[in-house]
Order: sequence, then C-alpha cells, then structure tokens
Amino acid sequence: MNGHGGDIYNNRVDIDYSVNLSPGGIPYEVRIAVVDALENIGNYPDMDSTYLRDLIAGNNNVSRDEVVMTSGASEAIMAAVRAVSPHKAILIEPSFYGYRHVLESVNCEEVVQYMAGADLTIDDDLPDMIDDSVDLIFINNPNNPTGRLINSKLLERILDKARDTGTKVILDESFYYMSQAVTDSYSRDIGGLLNEYRGLYIIRSYTKLFAIPGVRAGYILSNRDNRVELTRQLPEWNISEFARRSAVACERMMSEEYIGRVYRYIVKERDYLKRGLESHGLKVHVSDTCFFLVEGDDRLYDRLLNKRILIRDCSNFEGMPGGMFRLAVKDHDSNERLLKVIGEIYGT
Amino acid sequence: MNGHGGDIYNNRVDIDYSVNLSPGGIPYEVRIAVVDALENIGNYPDMDSTYLRDLIAGNNNVSRDEVVMTSGASEAIMAAVRAVSPHKAILIEPSFYGYRHVLESVNCEEVVQYMAGADLTIDDDLPDMIDDSVDLIFINNPNNPTGRLINSKLLERILDKARDTGTKVILDESFYYMSQAVTDSYSRDIGGLLNEYRGLYIIRSYTKLFAIPGVRAGYILSNRDNRVELTRQLPEWNISEFARRSAVACERMMSEEYIGRVYRYIVKERDYLKRGLESHGLKVHVSDTCFFLVEGDDRLYDRLLNKRILIRDCSNFEGMPGGMFRLAVKDHDSNERLLKVIGEIYGT
Repeated sequence: MNGHGGDIYNNRVDIDYSVNLSPGGIPYEVRIAVVDALENIGNYPDMDSTYLRDLIAGNNNVSRDEVVMTSGASEAIMAAVRAVSPHKAILIEPSFYGYRHVLESVNCEEVVQYMAGADLTIDDDLPDMIDDSVDLIFINNPNNPTGRLINSKLLERILDKARDTGTKVILDESFYYMSQAVTDSYSRDIGGLLNEYRGLYIIRSYTKLFAIPGVRAGYILSNRDNRVELTRQLPEWNISEFARRSAVACERMMSEEYIGRVYRYIVKERDYLKRGLESHGLKVHVSDTCFFLVEGDDRLYDRLLNKRILIRDCSNFEGMPGGMFRLAVKDHDSNERLLKVIGEIYGT
Repeated sequence: MNGHGGDIYNNRVDIDYSVNLSPGGIPYEVRIAVVDALENIGNYPDMDSTYLRDLIAGNNNVSRDEVVMTSGASEAIMAAVRAVSPHKAILIEPSFYGYRHVLESVNCEEVVQYMAGADLTIDDDLPDMIDDSVDLIFINNPNNPTGRLINSKLLERILDKARDTGTKVILDESFYYMSQAVTDSYSRDIGGLLNEYRGLYIIRSYTKLFAIPGVRAGYILSNRDNRVELTRQLPEWNISEFARRSAVACERMMSEEYIGRVYRYIVKERDYLKRGLESHGLKVHVSDTCFFLVEGDDRLYDRLLNKRILIRDCSNFEGMPGGMFRLAVKDHDSNERLLKVIGEIYGT
C-alpha cells in the first residue's frame, strides 16, 4: 500500500493514476520558462516577486499585498497554519491527509473530526460545529480524495459562522481550476471575499492545472492584514527562480478559455472512464474534478500495479469506507490502456 | 541602502559584489542537471530523496538518516529552529541577520546578544554565556559578514558546554567549503561529531560553492534522533526536482580537488583585491573566505552603484561599526574593473 499518491520511486510504474494532474500535461510555455530561468539561477530570486504578484493580483482581482508566494501548496498550508497557530482545529474527513501533518508540526492540542456522510459530502450541520473555541477549519474545494465541490451556499454559511466566531478558514483550492466551479470562477469577487472574511486563507498552486509537481510553486490569497505574519512564517528566499518563472508563464496563460478547455477535456475523459469502468461492473462515484473514487478489491490495485499502472489505495484516509481507490483522469491513450487492462482483470 | 545582499531588482547593477558566491560560477554539470530535471517535473519529486541523501552521507561520512534535505539554507535554518523551539537563544553579533527572522517566527522570548570584540571575532568568553537556561546558540562558520572562521578549539569548547547544558547548536556552514577550513575539512569526523553532540544541527547549502542561489537547495546534518522532528517541520514536498537534480550533480563534483581549486582561486583574487584596495587607501579586514569587510565612506557605496557596481552596506548588521562594507571575491575581470572604478573615485 502507498502512504501517498505519486510514489513512483518505490513502485515500477508506467502510468500513474495516483496523482491528479491536468491531462493536458506541461504547457510548452512552462518548459521555455524553465530554460529561461537557467540564465538567472546565479542570482538570488527577487524576494518580493513584485511582477509575479501583480500578475496574480490582476488575474484574481485582488491587490498585490493580498498575494504571498510559496513553494507549492504544501508550504502554503504550512505557512497559513503557523500564522494561525491553532489550539483547536476542525478537519473534514476524508480529506487531504497533509493537513494533519501541519497541525502536528504546530502541536495543535485538539483536532476535531467532521465525518462526511455516507455519500462522502459535507452536510448542512457542519457550521454548527464552529464556535468560539475553534481556531481553524480546513475546507478542501473540491475535496481530495472525493472529488466533490462544497455547495456554495453552505460554504458561505461556513465562512459567515467562522467570521462571527473568529475562526480562521484555510480554503484549499488546489483543484479548483480543474473543477465544475470554473464555469463561474471568473465572476467570483475574490477581493470582496478577502475583505469580508479576514480570517480566510485561499491556497492555490500551479501543480495540478499545469501538471508541474516537480517545480513547487504556489501562493496564498489572504487579507493584507495577514501578510506580515505569513511572510514571517516563510523562509526568506522560499521560491526558486524556476518556480518564479514558471508561475509567471502560468499566470500569462490563465484565462477563461484555457481553463475551460482543460476542464472540457477532463469531463469528456471522465465520462469515458466512468462508462468503461461501469461496463466492467465497478462502481464509480460522482466527481466534480479531475479524479474520482472507484469501489474495487485487492485485485484492482495489485493487478493494475502488476501491469505497471499505479492507482491510489484510499485505505489510509480517515473516515473512508474500505475498498475505495482514487483514479486520476488522464489523457485518452492512457485511459484506453487502463480500461483494456481492467477488462483483462475482470474478464469482461 | 539595502536591507540584504543581492538586491539587483531595486538597483541597476552590472556587477554584484553584495552576494558571496563562488567566483567559478555555475558548473556546467549543474546546468545539464537542470535540463535533465525538465524531463521529470511532471512527477512529484521523490519525498525521501534516498539516492541524494546517500551521496551526501557518503561525502560526509555520516548515515543517510543524518541527512535532511531542504530548499536552501534559509529553509534549513527555519526547520532547525522550529525543531528546537527555543525560549532563549544566543546570537553572535554581527552575524547573518536571517537568524533573527526565524527566531521571531517562533516567538522566541529572549534573544541574548554576544557582541564580537573590536576585531569582530569571537573571544574565549563566549562559552561562559551558555548555561541551562539557553536553548539555542547560532554559530556561523565562517561568519557572515566578517568572513572569519571560529577558532576550532573554541568551537569545541562551545560544543562541549552546549552538550553539558542541553543547549542546541545551529552551526551554519554555508561558506565552510569556500574557506581556509577546507584544507582540513576532509579529515573531519562529522559522523563522530553528530554522535557526540546530539543537539548539533549543521546547515549546508549548494548556493555558495556552486553559485546557484536561484535553485534553493541545501540540507541539515544532525543526529538521527532529530530526524523525525526536523521532517515534521518541513513541507511534505519541500524540494523541487531542480533542487534535487542539481544537488546530485553538486555532490558528484564534491572532492578535495574541486573545493581546493575553488579556494585557491579565491585566495589569489582576494589578495589581488586587498592589495588594490589598500593602494587606494582603503582599510581591508582579514577574511578566511570568499568575502571581506572594507572600511569606506558614502562615496564608496554611492559612486560604485553609480557605476552599476553593488556592494553590501553593513550598517544594518547589529554590532557593526559604521562605515563598513562587505565585498565578495569575484572573477578576475570583475575584480579588475572594480579596482579601476575605485581608482577613479579616490583619484589615485
């Protein structure tokens, strides 16, 4: 079993369905940015990343002071949690296990679990759990590993309640731009959101949409009042020149057209995979993004790995029923091969 | 005035004497490693960095479990300080101001300053300051901005005292392999050191010796007992694929011959700069490494910048006498140009 997705170092893997990246792959513009960065690795990166933060601010309708650059989402989450320094936090389960890693690093005394319902979605009772004693709540939207978006009215109720109780909210949007939400994402008033919810930390990264987990580039969007404390919790030169240049290239590509195109491809291939998997008798769960849950058995995991296809065994996610596996939506050729191998396994 | 070295983003600079990098520049092997890394940025980096840590362990005669990879020295220092979580710490002044940044991030209540003597070196009385109440002491060896190595007998006394009082030691060797110490560095028993001093955290980076500040790659050497806590204090995917591949290339290049060759060049050019600067009436301080202090006046800083040469104004280092500037030892052509411009300024 794997502790995390993407572990191609301890397995022999040709196709990795355990990491959830854009099936479009790494854009050419990012590769060029990396080669350009080579010319400047002999200099310390610009600590302030002014140009990059202006680009991000422009694309999100926020001010430059509301953008804090980080070395991927994992550093972003760590910096936000350290800035909050929670004594009591709510974790929704099942969700990204990395939140627990950072809560442990700050010795958070009390971690309250909200267990998602039988359909693995968040229900209307979540806001009731938030009171003055809760310092922090994590919302992963869409949620990993379930692939589900939170209902937007419910999210608003959570944010309202958190504002009233002084609870900080880490809203992890690592997969947001590869989800159903993109259809209205460009109408969101993020600046207004950061102004109204001053305890809100939105986590973003370039890892998923641009398929560059090896680069480590991400950022936090939060009210300008939180900037000093977030910066204090980060190493002084925290992003590499490669990360900075790649992020610039990604921001320049960011448009309704680009994310729309990627998402339409995801929907098409997700439907294709769902039909194929179901035709072999496997139960496929509903997803709003670029990965989904499948109910299977040990045959599914082991025999796929035997064919050098890695999927994510979800048994180490808290609150996850047994026999669940997470699969990414990949390019059509890979998906075709996956279905062929599954057809061989289940003999249908 | 500049808050830190290397700020070529807010100044127009042709030659940057404010950062202290190997005058040999970026090795060809590292450039190749970056291009190779491009092939793998679509995968999550190997969290465990097993192969890389084995290389480092081999080059330092320690075990793999005594090596923790970080995104440059700045992340290494932050992780070590968080692992220690000090209430009271000793800072030697003047020294690298980044230590204060990390002490603030953990809300260290009491920071005691040890002020270096008139010659800016550490004296025999330093160990007397260490007692049971001190959680942490920083030693920068050689020290930035003075360029001086600590006397090895004195360092041993500090380590002994710290061991006896349970005080942790962060030994920052960012410039160690570009200092006089390299002449005997390969005979050091680092494994033995980590075993005897369990509260010792040695900080290393590839930034200086391989002239790659834009890559962000470094590591911590510490007793294996500290590994779990250090890892807990780092983001899960903290080093980029570029950092990992560059570090592998650097470790393969590491040899007595390589570091000896770089250091001999530094000594030659440092002597050349010293003679030239003194011939123009400037006082040059003794240094054991690739940068040194010069006593000057505003003319020196402003008029060099006017000629697009940036040096480090040291006035924001605590405990630094006025009129001090730090200059790197660079390649011969640059050094020649620097001396020419200084000759024009001082009219000699």
